[in-house]
Amino acid sequence: MQADHIGIAVRSIATTLPHWERTLGVVGSPPEEVPTQKVRVAFLAAGDTHIEFLEPMTPDSAVGKFLDARGEGMHHLAFAVPNVDLKLAELAKEGARLIDKVSRPGARGRRVGFVHPSAMDGVLVEFVQTP
Amino acid sequence: MQADHIGIAVRSIATTLPHWERTLGVVGSPPEEVPTQKVRVAFLAAGDTHIEFLEPMTPDSAVGKFLDARGEGMHHLAFAVPNVDLKLAELAKEGARLIDKVSRPGARGRRVGFVHPSAMDGVLVEFVQTP
Repeated sequence: MQADHIGIAVRSIATTLPHWERTLGVVGSPPEEVPTQKVRVAFLAAGDTHIEFLEPMTPDSAVGKFLDARGEGMHHLAFAVPNVDLKLAELAKEGARLIDKVSRPGARGRRVGFVHPSAMDGVLVEFVQTP
Repeated sequence: MQADHIGIAVRSIATTLPHWERTLGVVGSPPEEVPTQKVRVAFLAAGDTHIEFLEPMTPDSAVGKFLDARGEGMHHLAFAVPNVDLKLAELAKEGARLIDKVSRPGARGRRVGFVHPSAMDGVLVEFVQTP
């Protein structure tokens, strides 16, 4: 299964992105707002996967709370699947603890759904619908 | 620049790997010991990148201490470069704080070098020499 992206929580995309662009030698995407998650995101290609930088739009967002509790750093790991709702239903049937029982709109116009870290050894796993 | 792998710290590869294999629908590599880092590792393919599971061989290893402090979860992010020593020298010149000033032997017979998380927005970044 394709790793779609690795999400990194940051205080400011404007200050972070240029540094990563220089270090990895690639140019990032223009920031995009994801109102359902109250974050601003920007993507950097890294082979056939991506780095996603997440900046909170409000302090009470999930990413804002993550930054307060743990500081900047890796936030989640996303995999591409043909049908997010099918994948979530399959995991629910196995008894996995889910954050999203059904998919919701995510960045880049794609459906997404999150699994609780307790179900995946401390890793917040996201499934993203293949375009 | 290619994301080579995402490292996940776990207490036990034997209990973790089968669960991830089932969820992602791929078969992992047999565990391998990396004495320089006092860890046992196993890889799962995820497109052209990999998930690396890291299990401490001793409690005083870096991964053992990470587990005690933060619990299981995402540990580092690795990128493939043609020459790790060259990349480390380039970053040192820019004033980046490094864990390794020169490369050392890593998993899968490849040279590796780590950059301090403070230099990369809280992310422990590894460079791995392309095979």
